[in-house]
Order: sequence, then C-alpha cells, then structure tokens
Amino acid sequence: MGRRRKPTELERIGIAIDAGLLANFDVIIGQRGYKNRSEAFRDLVRAELVTERTRLPDAPVVGTVTLVYNHHVRLLSQKLTDLQHEYHHSILSTLHVHLDHHNCLEIIVLQGTSKAVQDLASRLLATKGVNHGKLVMSTVNETL
Amino acid sequence: MGRRRKPTELERIGIAIDAGLLANFDVIIGQRGYKNRSEAFRDLVRAELVTERTRLPDAPVVGTVTLVYNHHVRLLSQKLTDLQHEYHHSILSTLHVHLDHHNCLEIIVLQGTSKAVQDLASRLLATKGVNHGKLVMSTVNETL
Amino acid sequence: MGRRRKPTELERIGIAIDAGLLANFDVIIGQRGYKNRSEAFRDLVRAELVTERTRLPDAPVVGTVTLVYNHHVRLLSQKLTDLQHEYHHSILSTLHVHLDHHNCLEIIVLQGTSKAVQDLASRLLATKGVNHGKLVMSTVNETL
Amino acid sequence: MGRRRKPTELERIGIAIDAGLLANFDVIIGQRGYKNRSEAFRDLVRAELVTERTRLPDAPVVGTVTLVYNHHVRLLSQKLTDLQHEYHHSILSTLHVHLDHHNCLEIIVLQGTSKAVQDLASRLLATKGVNHGKLVMSTVNETL
Repeated sequence: MGRRRKPTELERIGIAIDAGLLANFDVIIGQRGYKNRSEAFRDLVRAELVTERTRLPDAPVVGTVTLVYNHHVRLLSQKLTDLQHEYHHSILSTLHVHLDHHNCLEIIVLQGTSKAVQDLASRLLATKGVNHGKLVMSTVNETL
Repeated sequence: MGRRRKPTELERIGIAIDAGLLANFDVIIGQRGYKNRSEAFRDLVRAELVTERTRLPDAPVVGTVTLVYNHHVRLLSQKLTDLQHEYHHSILSTLHVHLDHHNCLEIIVLQGTSKAVQDLASRLLATKGVNHGKLVMSTVNETL
Repeated sequence: MGRRRKPTELERIGIAIDAGLLANFDVIIGQRGYKNRSEAFRDLVRAELVTERTRLPDAPVVGTVTLVYNHHVRLLSQKLTDLQHEYHHSILSTLHVHLDHHNCLEIIVLQGTSKAVQDLASRLLATKGVNHGKLVMSTVNETL
Repeated sequence: MGRRRKPTELERIGIAIDAGLLANFDVIIGQRGYKNRSEAFRDLVRAELVTERTRLPDAPVVGTVTLVYNHHVRLLSQKLTDLQHEYHHSILSTLHVHLDHHNCLEIIVLQGTSKAVQDLASRLLATKGVNHGKLVMSTVNETL
C-alpha cells in the first residue's frame, strides 16, 4: 500500500466512515482534548502497534513499574535498593513519593527485552511489604 | 466537525500520518486480514467507543460470560441452571460444549445495564466448581 | 513445598493475613456470592495460572470469540461461514443471537494453540461488517 | 467471618486447595520470587481490592501516567508544563528520562478522584507529540 518513504515524511490518506460513527468519535476526541482527528487517529494506531510489539518476549521495551509500599516494613527499602543494584544495567531511573505517614510510592523505569522487564517487575512486586503495583510497557522506535 | 447526517451515510475524511507509522499500520492490518485501511480504522474507533460506554454503570450492554467447569462437581449444573432461571429476564441464550471427559465450557449471553451484567457474571464465576471464566461486554447501537 | 500427590486430593494450608485486609476480602467475596474463602482463593489462583499459560504462543487453549455484526451487510454471513469452514478443525461450536432488527451476536468457540486461536480471532474480527468483538482465552487442564 | 480486630493485627486462616492446583501455584510464586504463599496470596487479594476500588469514579486514587514523546515537537515541553501547572494541585511529582536522541519518557504522579485522574491523564496523552502512554491507578489505604 504505497511506496516506502522516510519515516518523518507526512502522508495524507482518505478514510471512509459512517457519519454517525464519526460524530461519536468527534465527541470522545473532544472530551480528551485532541486538536484534530489525525492526531487522535495516530494515537489509536500507535497504541495498537505498542501492544503488538511488547507481546514478543525479545522486543526491546521501556517499562514503568509503580510500587506502593509501607516504609515501616523492616528492611524493605534496603531490599528494594539491593534488587535495583543487582539489576542496575536494566534500571534507568527511580522516582520516590512520600504519600502519607506510612505509604511510599516508588516508580522504577526499566529497559530491556519484554521478558527481562516483566521478570524484574515480577520480582519487585513480589517483595514482602510491597502492597500493590503494576507494570506498563512501551516501545521506542523511529517509526512510532 | 461537519454537519450532522443520517448515521448510515458514509463520509470521507482526510488523515495526516507519518509515512513510517502508516507502513507499520499497513503491516498489522495485513496480518489481521483487513481489506482496507478504512475498515481497520473504523474498528479501532468502535473498540474505543465500546470501552467508553460499557464503563458507565447504567449503559445498556450485551455480555458474554465464558465458564469452564467440571461437570462431576455435585449439583453444579443444577446450581448454574437455577441461577440462570432466577435471572431469566437477563439471559438471552446459552451454549454448552463438552471439552473432554471432565470439563465443560458454558457460554451465557446476558443483556442489561453494565452493572447488572457484571454482578450476574460475578455470581456465575463464583459458583463452586466453576474453575475459570471471563466476561466480555459489548454494546448495540445504531451508530456503531 | 510439600511432596507431590494426586491432583484431585485436597490439601489444607495456613495463610497469614492482616485482619483489615481479610475483612475487605470478606466483603468482596460476599458481594460476588462465594460460599467460603477457600473457593474465592482458588479462583484467584486459577485466574493467575490461566493468564500465565495463555501467554505462551504454543499453549493449548480454548477461545471464545464474541462478534457483533450487522446482518444487512452484503455477503457477511456467507463470509463468516466460509471462514469458519476453512478453519473447521479449530472451531468447536457456534452460537447465534438475534439482538435486534439489524444486529446479530455470534459467539464462536475455538480450540488450538494460543497463537492459532489469536490469529483466527483477528481474522474474524477484521471481517468487514463485524462492528465489534473480543476474544477470551481459557485453558483446560487436569490441575486447574 | 471472624470478629473485627485492628487492621495491623495478623490472622491465620486455613485454605483448602487441590494438591495439583497448589503445586502449580508454588511454581509461579517461585518464579516471581515470593518467599512464602501467604505473601503471594495477600498480593492477589490486594490487586483484586485495588481493581474494585479504582473503578468507582469518586474513589481517591494515586495515578502514574507514563508518556513517551519526541522532544523535537515544537512547544510540546511547554504545553506539557503548562498543563501540569494548570492542574498543579493534582500533580505530586514528575520524573523525566532522556531515552535517546529524540525520545523522552515522562512520568507524572497524580492524586485525586478516579474520574479526575483519568480525565487529566487523557488530556496529557492527547497532547500532540505524545506518541504513547498509559495510566496506572492505585489506592492508598490503611487496610491495604
């Protein structure tokens, strides 16, 4: 479908769409603050591509792990720090927020293959004292 | 963005998109068997609309509950049947598949508000002997 | 952790849990209609196992594809039927519900490897005229 | 189910579980690095509670928004900064990572009701130049 060009070049394509569906699309892109349909459409396409790519175990990904934990749990900070140093080559950065008297939020940015990032996230989430958490994966790519 | 027309009328809109992103989009729509970009685009938009709508507790939805269960568990079929009769006004249809000597798959189609459908699905999934299951919600709408 | 026994044998394990967390757990299992904590706990464990297993491309799974489509679209029923016959070895059963004057719900039960089931589901969902749909995967296993 | 005690007190409950299911559970908790079954079980329960609570529009939540964007896009950093200042009462903290020559990762920690956090996350993700992103919600609670 069309010859290959440089990734940064902009193409213009035509899309046929039912008037009613389009009206509904316009409502939700308005609510989300999109300036135009093209940007909203590109975001839908990018989200689909990222989902496809992060599914492959070997895909290079960036992961954001959010951890909620109770800092009173004995040795927890030490254990999380040790774990991060053991995997320092996979960890890009860390953000720490004091939520209240007891609870901390720690966000750890990981880089590596999809499988490696998921494995390390599982170990972080399994640490005793970490009450809740989740991993979000993204990809970085010239054509995203 | 455009005046309102009848839902079934087809409009044609122009979308600006980076050549590289478009090339990647073409790859995945090819893999999934789409005949053209418009159809793939409309499906992305519809999926987004359905997600938005089924989130509201009062939204009218159709639900598909898939249950995997062991038919040797005493009284289980009877319990599932009783539960379905208690809520017969919400249940449209049921499909039963014998998976192997022990396991059954039962699919129950529900109709009602998003909250009512989720509550009934939870009760079905919580029934002792039901090993696994999941609910999928969809909407029916003239402008989908 | 304990020697291996027959899958159907019941073990009894002790779990330490904060009183407050337990009270909250009791509330949600009550809402969902669980008869006891053991059944609710087993369901959480099974859901986790199914998620792990269906992630592997080669894992044997059962899939439920829910399709919502407009039966007025020319040749759609024929196309869906043709596609199902082409893959008849993967398709266990089909349920059809007439939702309203325009819309049909079709549920197709698939069997095969996780990858094969996902590929066929993608093709069904990409068929022109299919407005919305989703795939749910489950596993059948003696130890589930 | 048991009289109420202080949230921090530990209770011990007995769970009946099929030997085969337990063996499989032990495998995945081993892979994830859990020290014992109780901790793994508590994590399953907490994840379920957080999912339930963040679903309510008025529930107080903490949100982590991960944004991947191209810093060459004109005025994007300015727009993201302006948006964050407009909602400064909802924003706890921000982490910025330079991924490569073109791409930035920005993580923004939000606090507020589930609905407010989702709305602000949608606006951030809809900003032109933001290529991909996702929101994770968590709750902070004495009984988590």
